[in-house]
Amino acid sequence: MSVTYPLGFRAGSVHAGLRTIPAPDLAVIVNDGPDDVVAGVFTTNRVCAAPVQWSRRVTADHKARVVVANAAVANACTGIDGLTDCQCEAEHIAILFGCEPHEVVVASTGVIGERLDMPSTLVGASTAHGVLGRGDDVDASAARAIMTTDTVPKMATVDVGGARFGGIAKGAGMLAPQLATMLVFLTTDAVVDPDEFQDALAKACDVTFSRVDSDACMSTNDTVVAMASGASGANLTGGELTEALTELCAVLARQLVADAEGSRHDVKVAVTGATSTEAAVAVAREVTRSNLVKTAIAGNDPNWGRILAAVGCVPEDVAPFDPDQVDVSINGIEICRAGGIGEDRNLVDMRPREVHIDIELHAGNAEAAVWTNDLTHEYVEENSAYTS
Amino acid sequence: MSVTYPLGFRAGSVHAGLRTIPAPDLAVIVNDGPDDVVAGVFTTNRVCAAPVQWSRRVTADHKARVVVANAAVANACTGIDGLTDCQCEAEHIAILFGCEPHEVVVASTGVIGERLDMPSTLVGASTAHGVLGRGDDVDASAARAIMTTDTVPKMATVDVGGARFGGIAKGAGMLAPQLATMLVFLTTDAVVDPDEFQDALAKACDVTFSRVDSDACMSTNDTVVAMASGASGANLTGGELTEALTELCAVLARQLVADAEGSRHDVKVAVTGATSTEAAVAVAREVTRSNLVKTAIAGNDPNWGRILAAVGCVPEDVAPFDPDQVDVSINGIEICRAGGIGEDRNLVDMRPREVHIDIELHAGNAEAAVWTNDLTHEYVEENSAYTS
Repeated sequence: MSVTYPLGFRAGSVHAGLRTIPAPDLAVIVNDGPDDVVAGVFTTNRVCAAPVQWSRRVTADHKARVVVANAAVANACTGIDGLTDCQCEAEHIAILFGCEPHEVVVASTGVIGERLDMPSTLVGASTAHGVLGRGDDVDASAARAIMTTDTVPKMATVDVGGARFGGIAKGAGMLAPQLATMLVFLTTDAVVDPDEFQDALAKACDVTFSRVDSDACMSTNDTVVAMASGASGANLTGGELTEALTELCAVLARQLVADAEGSRHDVKVAVTGATSTEAAVAVAREVTRSNLVKTAIAGNDPNWGRILAAVGCVPEDVAPFDPDQVDVSINGIEICRAGGIGEDRNLVDMRPREVHIDIELHAGNAEAAVWTNDLTHEYVEENSAYTS
Repeated sequence: MSVTYPLGFRAGSVHAGLRTIPAPDLAVIVNDGPDDVVAGVFTTNRVCAAPVQWSRRVTADHKARVVVANAAVANACTGIDGLTDCQCEAEHIAILFGCEPHEVVVASTGVIGERLDMPSTLVGASTAHGVLGRGDDVDASAARAIMTTDTVPKMATVDVGGARFGGIAKGAGMLAPQLATMLVFLTTDAVVDPDEFQDALAKACDVTFSRVDSDACMSTNDTVVAMASGASGANLTGGELTEALTELCAVLARQLVADAEGSRHDVKVAVTGATSTEAAVAVAREVTRSNLVKTAIAGNDPNWGRILAAVGCVPEDVAPFDPDQVDVSINGIEICRAGGIGEDRNLVDMRPREVHIDIELHAGNAEAAVWTNDLTHEYVEENSAYTS
């Protein structure tokens, strides 16, 4: 299960006809209460889609009853018309579900620069309203409805302090810091304070989705929305909320990495011995963004020189360290020691899907890890052939 | 011709045996004077190779007689041993050419994390000393001796104010801001002021090599060195020097882009209507670094949504503009107008090798252009199979 694992939630998804393949492409998730708390984290891209602009306002009020999400069309770069489409969709949903338009979160993913097919979308929403339910099948269908180039649906559940948490996510490629091209919908039946809930969601995203960087491209539509129904009656502290949402987001983020477009390796770049967490993240991020490192890994080449070259690109004021002190291990073999040649590179086993790059800066005690993928032929194929 | 086009220079290159294929892999360029002025611009990567550390000190004194450069091994990440090898090479060259070791510029390119084969290098340098000459063949051979994954040698000449300028370059892929994995050697027979010469070289690099960004990876060995012999007797002003070196570097930079690893398109991203040159460069750079834009171009897809998404990633304090005002043209067709849908994307002819992306921000009067390449299967192939 996922979004209907917590009490107080129903979901429904349909093939509204937005995409040509006969698969679900529109999902609604409804919060039956008693509470209607919502929190949201969105793309920081200045070019943001109409649904992001709309839903940012909804979540700012901390109050929502319904999430409606579609795949196939992102409703991004569609100007004032796109925003009108969003509002129209929210008004239609509000009538169906007996709430206010400003209690409806709207999310879209797919091709940029095309308008939504509104008749199909509205009819689809009505149909979804008619098939609302709970359980495994309902949740899996909702997770499938928001997929684009994903090959598998992403779902997770967590239990903390007598409350349940569930979530679905979509995203494959375009994973980037400050979120990915990613839609994430989380639910909980905990009783929460709205400000603490928002704060917990922001903290959770910061150490999970924001530390996944598949191709350094930040999308126009990234959306993480969490709803709380209060149906369990379990009062959770801010700390418990942060713990639960972080665990939930970490599981979903790991699933996103595992399904990144055309990847053969999931790569964890862990930096230790940094002067601050920010410095560690900056170094890890630079390595995860190096196409030369990522192609080397695709070729099963433990090329530590390229890793060191990427590390050296981080400005000294961002991450103070002595390049001649840096150690680098790949899958446990320290092939670079003190900035120079270490153990025999032939000892490194590059066959596992998971590749661990450990970078010790010897400059402090802070650490952080960022996940990425290798850069393969299949990535190029998928992104040169698919218009998104 | 190239480096021996100006008076007062000779060059020689040999197969020293550093690479397995029977091609030249070591070149020397000697300045016979009367002047011995040198200027240099180097990688800003904190992980920089031994020859960069050595040659940075040489050029700081503005005085050099000889450049020696090798391919196959970068002598990077080789610690104190690598620096000793460099010094040893400079001392050997100094004896051969009758100058001081601190008048010898050393440059290397190739695999990181391996030491130079010193016996082969020193014997090679001696042999090169014995074949010094001038002319087309000599220059072409020198340009070939520094090639790695390049498919063609890069050479250029320029005449300004009665003085001659010539240059060779190597680099294919790993082109990045603040230079590329790139060796560039320039010569002139102008009479120059050392400080003006250094200043002119820095300015020339800033608007040419630093605006080429093939894969956003900055190398450990990037080196641009210019020598002036004064043999023409032509006194050039700082302005004339900047003009000449900029023209020379622009021609070589364009050749580097045209030969970038596995590329099918050369892409010029020109930003106009920016509030400052820095803002224009930042926006252009963000687009040239987007793997999603680069794979779309490889697939001949005029995907303006990905371009706009990249533009939107530039922070507002770096480049102020209104995303809803931005126009984007690809090969002359304005497919994005005011942040939304413009002309029909099917009108865009993506067949030419050169692709022009024009971005009008409508925020000011400054402009800048950055060159890059598309991201192809061949790029992945070359960089996953080749250890460098």
